[in-house]
Amino acid sequence: MSLKALISPQSVALVGANEKFGFGGFAARNLIQNAENCRFYFINPSHDTVLGVKSYKSMSDLPETVDCVELAIPKQGVNEQLELAGKLGIRAAVVYASGYTEEHTEEGRKLNDELKEIAARYDMDVLGPNCMGLLNVADGVNTMGLAMPEELMHRDPKVAILSHSGALSSAVSDRGNYPLAYQVSVGNGAVTTMEDFMDYFIGDEKTKVLALYMEGLKKPRLFLKCLKKAAEVGKPIVVLKTGRSEAAAKSASSHTGSLAGSFQSFEAVFKKYGVVSVNTFEELIVTSNMLAVLYDHMPESTKIAGFNLSGGGNVLMAEAAQVSDVEFAIFDDATIEKIRPYIPAFSTATNPLDATTDLFFKPANITGIVKAMSECPDVGYIVAGQDMSAADDKSMEVFVTGLARARLENPDCKPVVMNCITERDRNPEYRKILYDAGIPLLSSVAPSLQSLSYMNRYIEYRAEEHTLEIPTAMYDSTKTAVMYSETESKKILAAEGIPVPREVLIERREDIGKIQTLRFPLVAKVSSADIPHKSNVGGVKTGIENLDQAECAYEEILVNCRQKCPGACVDGIVFQEMAPEGQEFLVGVSNDPQLGPMVMVGLGGIFVEIFKDIVLLPAPLSIAEVVAALEELKAAPLLHGYRGSAELDIEALAEVVSKISDYALRNSESLKEMDVNPVIVYQKGEGAIAVDALIIKNA
Amino acid sequence: MSLKALISPQSVALVGANEKFGFGGFAARNLIQNAENCRFYFINPSHDTVLGVKSYKSMSDLPETVDCVELAIPKQGVNEQLELAGKLGIRAAVVYASGYTEEHTEEGRKLNDELKEIAARYDMDVLGPNCMGLLNVADGVNTMGLAMPEELMHRDPKVAILSHSGALSSAVSDRGNYPLAYQVSVGNGAVTTMEDFMDYFIGDEKTKVLALYMEGLKKPRLFLKCLKKAAEVGKPIVVLKTGRSEAAAKSASSHTGSLAGSFQSFEAVFKKYGVVSVNTFEELIVTSNMLAVLYDHMPESTKIAGFNLSGGGNVLMAEAAQVSDVEFAIFDDATIEKIRPYIPAFSTATNPLDATTDLFFKPANITGIVKAMSECPDVGYIVAGQDMSAADDKSMEVFVTGLARARLENPDCKPVVMNCITERDRNPEYRKILYDAGIPLLSSVAPSLQSLSYMNRYIEYRAEEHTLEIPTAMYDSTKTAVMYSETESKKILAAEGIPVPREVLIERREDIGKIQTLRFPLVAKVSSADIPHKSNVGGVKTGIENLDQAECAYEEILVNCRQKCPGACVDGIVFQEMAPEGQEFLVGVSNDPQLGPMVMVGLGGIFVEIFKDIVLLPAPLSIAEVVAALEELKAAPLLHGYRGSAELDIEALAEVVSKISDYALRNSESLKEMDVNPVIVYQKGEGAIAVDALIIKNA
Repeated sequence: MSLKALISPQSVALVGANEKFGFGGFAARNLIQNAENCRFYFINPSHDTVLGVKSYKSMSDLPETVDCVELAIPKQGVNEQLELAGKLGIRAAVVYASGYTEEHTEEGRKLNDELKEIAARYDMDVLGPNCMGLLNVADGVNTMGLAMPEELMHRDPKVAILSHSGALSSAVSDRGNYPLAYQVSVGNGAVTTMEDFMDYFIGDEKTKVLALYMEGLKKPRLFLKCLKKAAEVGKPIVVLKTGRSEAAAKSASSHTGSLAGSFQSFEAVFKKYGVVSVNTFEELIVTSNMLAVLYDHMPESTKIAGFNLSGGGNVLMAEAAQVSDVEFAIFDDATIEKIRPYIPAFSTATNPLDATTDLFFKPANITGIVKAMSECPDVGYIVAGQDMSAADDKSMEVFVTGLARARLENPDCKPVVMNCITERDRNPEYRKILYDAGIPLLSSVAPSLQSLSYMNRYIEYRAEEHTLEIPTAMYDSTKTAVMYSETESKKILAAEGIPVPREVLIERREDIGKIQTLRFPLVAKVSSADIPHKSNVGGVKTGIENLDQAECAYEEILVNCRQKCPGACVDGIVFQEMAPEGQEFLVGVSNDPQLGPMVMVGLGGIFVEIFKDIVLLPAPLSIAEVVAALEELKAAPLLHGYRGSAELDIEALAEVVSKISDYALRNSESLKEMDVNPVIVYQKGEGAIAVDALIIKNA
Repeated sequence: MSLKALISPQSVALVGANEKFGFGGFAARNLIQNAENCRFYFINPSHDTVLGVKSYKSMSDLPETVDCVELAIPKQGVNEQLELAGKLGIRAAVVYASGYTEEHTEEGRKLNDELKEIAARYDMDVLGPNCMGLLNVADGVNTMGLAMPEELMHRDPKVAILSHSGALSSAVSDRGNYPLAYQVSVGNGAVTTMEDFMDYFIGDEKTKVLALYMEGLKKPRLFLKCLKKAAEVGKPIVVLKTGRSEAAAKSASSHTGSLAGSFQSFEAVFKKYGVVSVNTFEELIVTSNMLAVLYDHMPESTKIAGFNLSGGGNVLMAEAAQVSDVEFAIFDDATIEKIRPYIPAFSTATNPLDATTDLFFKPANITGIVKAMSECPDVGYIVAGQDMSAADDKSMEVFVTGLARARLENPDCKPVVMNCITERDRNPEYRKILYDAGIPLLSSVAPSLQSLSYMNRYIEYRAEEHTLEIPTAMYDSTKTAVMYSETESKKILAAEGIPVPREVLIERREDIGKIQTLRFPLVAKVSSADIPHKSNVGGVKTGIENLDQAECAYEEILVNCRQKCPGACVDGIVFQEMAPEGQEFLVGVSNDPQLGPMVMVGLGGIFVEIFKDIVLLPAPLSIAEVVAALEELKAAPLLHGYRGSAELDIEALAEVVSKISDYALRNSESLKEMDVNPVIVYQKGEGAIAVDALIIKNA
């Protein structure tokens, strides 16, 4: 699908145009408002004119084949009109009606299937159903079925907002100076999905930033391809992905009929591809706005220089920075000297700087402070804080003018952003002064500093430090998965070049002499795909020092297993070299049906079970990626020698994890899950070994 | 100090009244604005009139002794005028000038000392210096030196805002419908401090809620007394306490000259006294507003019924509730049936409920949904979510009117609050409809749900479940603290009734036979106050099974200590019964110079060192308080039997902690710190024992 006829139509027909409070009335007004950019025709069999514009009886009567048709009619009539549009050669349609898959009714499912079939037959791009339409500020076309303020169309277009919720996407409409380029209410995404629009806008030159409100995926592999492409071309994607709670996941599923994937897996994927994942809708708006306003003048480093005109504001900034992990630059002596003339005699140039209300009366000092901060080598960008209300306020005018001048009069000035103190109505005139100077106005302190933290992670992201390869196929859950025995599982690991203990399978007691090729002590384990929890049934004996003990263990295990698992098919008893003690890790793979194999690493025991101290990483993984990720464990100090214990062989562990991730990627269609537990890691230079393993895979 | 003359003066003199942009001009206008409530006189020797009002040459010329004088003059003239005011019998003063202790200059310190001396001599309540003044909406008096909108004075007065930052306290000024009663910019608090005002407003009937922006304490014991009183009378205090970061603490200290205490200790104290501690300024405003609007109609339980008109809003509410730990009520069948008629046929009554935009057109349905939710026994209160912009919007009018009716037409209706989606300008008319119906309008989703979480903790707080006793004296850091040896420290514990191992101190080798009164195995440790880290110097031997081994250990330890610590004064060697293995805990006391002894409990080793998994609790502590607090440990599952291990004797541990807390409280003036590490805890019914201890205490 090209989407061009849907996104930038030159001509549009509106079926169901009327003058009422509703989709048909709003859509009609929007078309009239933008008549200079897009020819339009109203269709309503029961009217001759609508809002003074001629109304046709049918699409068949139109003087031209339009690019796109908007269907502002009840669901019962939609498919008939779509069929007609297809016959007439119309390539795109917007369907506002609801009552499809989101209602979980038989009728809804049937209508949806028909709609998809018609769209496929005519190769038609259909937006919706159950959507609010599409706003294209860049080309001045509006097929939204919502009342939209006219001034929206005159914005400086930079951001494409794609949303699974129509109501939320419109929440930026009267947000001052948000540089909206496109707003797409994807609705149910029966035909054209959020992923299709992502693909389009990543390739669209006018779009500098994508902002997504996303409840789930429709086309998982296209989604991953889009993330890869965006990472490679360096186009920022800011996303609010819902589904962090059971309750929310449930709500999302009933909202769009999408299947919500695991939230943690999404987070891991976002991190790998440098996607800016935010936690609140407010942060989505603030962060996408900031990245868009700064897109041709992005900070080159992440440390900030902060200043406020009130001591309280300065404290709030310092605290929020701490909470959000935003670092203040160190001012060198030269910077401190340069700032000195602009602040009261008793003050010192700390960071953040309490510049005091003194500056309200001295705009040149504000410009001077910004310049001095900008020239400090450690500073990436400047954050100015001061509360802005709706009132006309001489001091606020001085402040924003001083900031704007610093940027406008000095092309070398580093980026400047401004945060406020509280949520409140804000003065549109001062907002505009800032916007025109390329200074994003953020929000109140906490979401503002959090948004800086998101931008910082984006600045620091380097695509080349990650393996961006995506799975060739997703897990096929229609097939039956089988559990591989420990021996089979470890053979697979060994074939991948992962160290495993040497072992011998004894199928008959008289062959037990074969174990003498192994190095004692040994551990004996029952080998049976029917007995997953071997210890629980007395199927494991450790510390076997010689052949006699081995014979006893052999007998004992068989007796135990016959008693506890009478029906189990037992291959024999495996004798393994016991691995020396070391730090135990757990490495696992869970194959996300939407996002591909996710590799989990953590220290064993209470670390995983009580503290949930793991990292989750999408396969494949280079050794360097794993090494970097391990530092994110809370238990990371234990890796580097803790209280005098030796440093662990992190590289060896990372190599094991990397090889497991390669295996998982190559088998992404068939591997269901995998547990390598424990991987014992020894001190630096002494390696790591996979002692036990369990693979579950389609037969 | 009574503070009455400062807070509710009947007559005020303004020294330095003028017509300019600044303290003197703003203060003059404020007095004129509120002339009907408070007589006032302007004093400015170089003017005959100011703003058309007669100006006197000096305070001495006034026709009456005013209650309060405002000094809007530079710091150099302040003390002379204060002295004059004192002589004339004026009981209160407001000093706006800055340049005192906050500047850390010799001149500032000197002026501050003089100011305090004058205030003390005349028993005068002085607000400031370095403050913005005081606004008393309740009595219609305004001694602020800031431009204040007149409509502020007509609010429904309920909240007292006390702030160490003048700029921040004024950030609520144009926030629609915030029920401000008093606003005090405490400034440097040289004479009247935030604690004095807390004391006043906790006793003030008009004040329903206190909201504090607090950077540090001036009068720690009065602070604790205030918290105790507020807990006992049930008056909510909402506080934003700064100091969570080093940087912020530094900024705070240079701002008000206050000493910032440890942030974690403050949090622990707030929890004990039921103080609502918030993390951001936005939450301070939202939470105090909500508690004030609901004060005579507070929710009786904490579970919410949520509903939104958009699926997206519903998802955001569910997610934010999850993040902020706000629980949704379970709708019983009767409730589901009652809701059914008001939602589309295909919908089911989930919580939160996506009521769909259908309701925009049906105000009676909104009222009906609220009523149905209110009647559900599991529901504490109702949260309605919908974005509100500044625009006139028929559908929003219908929505807020429907909510308001539900509350106004039904006296039994449970409390209702409303949250929005994003930060933006909001329609004042719709705000007022909600306010008049007693429905607090919160903020965007995340701070709103977080504020609900704060309110829930307040609702659940029961003063009677806590020991609210406060220390009789704070730690005296001017005296010299000494370290008690392990033996001395454990004797103190034993005297408190805390189990410790039996031990014998052997001072001469020939007395070693005395150890035979003990039960082997034993551990031998050097006894010396000069050797704090005994293990490091070979001063400890474990697993001594008999007298021979004891003799060897004795010799060996002495030799080691002579070599490694040649100057140490050694009392002898202590032989102790070795405690059997069990779960090790660390119990510590750190005596906060402002907040009193803080008791720390956590599991030993990596739990404390890597995961920082501790609870911090202000002494004294009942056994029940400790038991409840232990459940907040991340490692709490280990207490109750983990993977088949036995349940621990939590009661025994709690008794040890409680006794330690009693000792700490009784010795609050002299105890510096205390480490009882480990306390070994055995399985349920088998007790706990303090195996090692270190007390540091003033001699």
